Amino acid sequence: MKAEIITIGDEILIGQIVDSNSAYIGQELNKTGISVTQITTVSDDKHKILKAISEAEKRANLIILTGGLGPTKDDITKKTIAEYFNDELIFNKDVYNHVKNLLSGRGITMNELNSKQAYVPSTCKVLFNDLGTAPGMLFEKNNKIYFSTPGVPFEMKFLIKERLIPYLKEKFTFDSIIHKVVMTQGIPESHLATIIEDWENNLPKDIKLAYLPQPGLVRLRLSAQGDKEKLIKQIDNEIDKLNKIIPEAIFGYDEEKIEFSVFNLLKKEGKTMSTAESCTGGNISALITSISGSSEIFKGTVVSYSNEIKENVLGVKIKSLEKYGAVSQQVVEEMITGILKLMKTDYAIAVSGIAGPTGGTKDKPVGTTWIAVGSKDKIISEKHLFGEERNRNIRRASVTALNILRNFIK
Amino acid sequence: MKAEIITIGDEILIGQIVDSNSAYIGQELNKTGISVTQITTVSDDKHKILKAISEAEKRANLIILTGGLGPTKDDITKKTIAEYFNDELIFNKDVYNHVKNLLSGRGITMNELNSKQAYVPSTCKVLFNDLGTAPGMLFEKNNKIYFSTPGVPFEMKFLIKERLIPYLKEKFTFDSIIHKVVMTQGIPESHLATIIEDWENNLPKDIKLAYLPQPGLVRLRLSAQGDKEKLIKQIDNEIDKLNKIIPEAIFGYDEEKIEFSVFNLLKKEGKTMSTAESCTGGNISALITSISGSSEIFKGTVVSYSNEIKENVLGVKIKSLEKYGAVSQQVVEEMITGILKLMKTDYAIAVSGIAGPTGGTKDKPVGTTWIAVGSKDKIISEKHLFGEERNRNIRRASVTALNILRNFIK
Repeated sequence: MKAEIITIGDEILIGQIVDSNSAYIGQELNKTGISVTQITTVSDDKHKILKAISEAEKRANLIILTGGLGPTKDDITKKTIAEYFNDELIFNKDVYNHVKNLLSGRGITMNELNSKQAYVPSTCKVLFNDLGTAPGMLFEKNNKIYFSTPGVPFEMKFLIKERLIPYLKEKFTFDSIIHKVVMTQGIPESHLATIIEDWENNLPKDIKLAYLPQPGLVRLRLSAQGDKEKLIKQIDNEIDKLNKIIPEAIFGYDEEKIEFSVFNLLKKEGKTMSTAESCTGGNISALITSISGSSEIFKGTVVSYSNEIKENVLGVKIKSLEKYGAVSQQVVEEMITGILKLMKTDYAIAVSGIAGPTGGTKDKPVGTTWIAVGSKDKIISEKHLFGEERNRNIRRASVTALNILRNFIK
Repeated sequence: MKAEIITIGDEILIGQIVDSNSAYIGQELNKTGISVTQITTVSDDKHKILKAISEAEKRANLIILTGGLGPTKDDITKKTIAEYFNDELIFNKDVYNHVKNLLSGRGITMNELNSKQAYVPSTCKVLFNDLGTAPGMLFEKNNKIYFSTPGVPFEMKFLIKERLIPYLKEKFTFDSIIHKVVMTQGIPESHLATIIEDWENNLPKDIKLAYLPQPGLVRLRLSAQGDKEKLIKQIDNEIDKLNKIIPEAIFGYDEEKIEFSVFNLLKKEGKTMSTAESCTGGNISALITSISGSSEIFKGTVVSYSNEIKENVLGVKIKSLEKYGAVSQQVVEEMITGILKLMKTDYAIAVSGIAGPTGGTKDKPVGTTWIAVGSKDKIISEKHLFGEERNRNIRRASVTALNILRNFIK
């Protein structure tokens, strides 16, 4: 089965929002064994939408439309789909009651805009949207499936995962596509390519490798299609070899984020951590606490954005600040000592750097960052030179610090 | 001039990465007066790329290709474009020297993969990529322009903004498209639509309105095409009217983030702030410190992820924690008092809530969040009930807290 995604919305074409919906749909379909072969984004314009559907159905047998089903006046997808199938919108009592119940559960009275959601094309199969007022709508014609979902991400996710995919799995059986992604941190892409060149050249010819860089990370994707059991074994075997070449760089697989690797490691060991952050401004803390259950391993953070706070809250010596500056080995190591004492955790991370774009000097250009990790027995620290761009520097400092802590604990 | 973007990469189709490049390109072209009419994502496959280019050139006169120009082996775009134009790759000494200098500046020796970047199609105009090794390549044929950029976001941004757009502006003059976005916080989409219904219905007919919701925010986009001066006046006039209807909700315009509104306000007043965060885990601090120059107005944060830290570092009374629980008015107000004392700032934000998915009770379900803001003279606090999803709750709590502080300062 080949799928295409049609994303509808001027807001995407003018760059107001990023189309993250297609990525989610791509992931979920792929896991099921359905390839997405094209994604097309068109404007909120009837003719453009009609054209996109008729072209997509020439190439694919599953067409998913997202966007344009919300309650406000700029949404036109529903009417357009009805026209495409020479259909008309009819009142659907089940949808009406569903919307009414949903809103009353949130203490909201139904208004006219919400009522309109209860009109759906007469030939569509409604896939109920438990999380919102715009229903999912499924059409079948000439052995092709068309599915329309609202564009609000959490509603779309629900409709794809809990409604569309179960429906497809019941109706069809799928070939396997295997993807395994190796998450690495600390080695830039072109150098990684050189280091693992021999391994790459010796990969079985069915396995395709892709490099996917992100700030501070490189993801290596191994892909293959065919006999699932055999492929998984082959890929796992190759990853074992890779682990011997770059053991410190590999922190996880597939969707795993580096904060999850650290979280899982601490949880397994029954240990806790805290952070003292200057240039990362709470970003490491925010990453860790984005994880449900993080309170088991995480106690807290001091963001010390001024020297005064470094001194008064974290106990960094005024002498060290004066002699070496806030971005120095001495200061990050004293930040570790201070935060361990304050938060009473087993491990801590401290970061101080020049995120930029201003504040750089000849000796310490923008991007200069000191990272320390430690426990009561030992502190290690590293100096890194990241780039010019503030938010990339913050991101790179955060993932680098987390990987240093991960290797420190191990 | 109509533009189409072709994004190349299996990683987008399988949902490994989100196509944020197209959003950036859409924004920049729009500002210039060029409409993006379609975005197409295809796989790293020669035939798919060739097909996408030949279809796009039927509809548009500017075709931008992103992705597939990096140094590693899975990149094939360059060869494909050469084939499309019946061209061959030739060694370009300028590109070679540029790549060599760029790498040596980073202390990296040129390897074979990097050298390959110096081969470009013979008929292309090279647009130098100051930030990376893969060049931008521009082709002109039958009054149409084709531009290929690497997919690494910061390199692509440089090539679009500093290379392609100046090139286009020199060659063509453009019609104006005006977009103005009103950023609102605190009123859900469907209720906002009801509150501003009269205003919306009385908009001049050339002005198009779109609702763009995000967690905790709704952006209202007003768009029009035509006489720039006149439209700007008309739109500003409509926004003035809107400001009288929802004054507390509007925190800014266009790309402005709520943290910038708060930053600008504090900077103007010469005041400082700090945060005491529980469920938001440092996210508010990370938002503020993502702004260059934030150290002028921001001193620091305590993330108190355990009651122990609330008590020992922030001075929250153990009695209040026991009697009212960590998620209570008393506790967030005491957090304000504590953080103001510790950080010696003019203003502070404190947040304590149940981000979920676990930890909810009947009285305090997941999503329950207490937010306080204050100064030495006054503390105000609000209880909010957000949703079920952890990261949405963190995001909504953060933007809500920032808007409460903004209105508090005003």
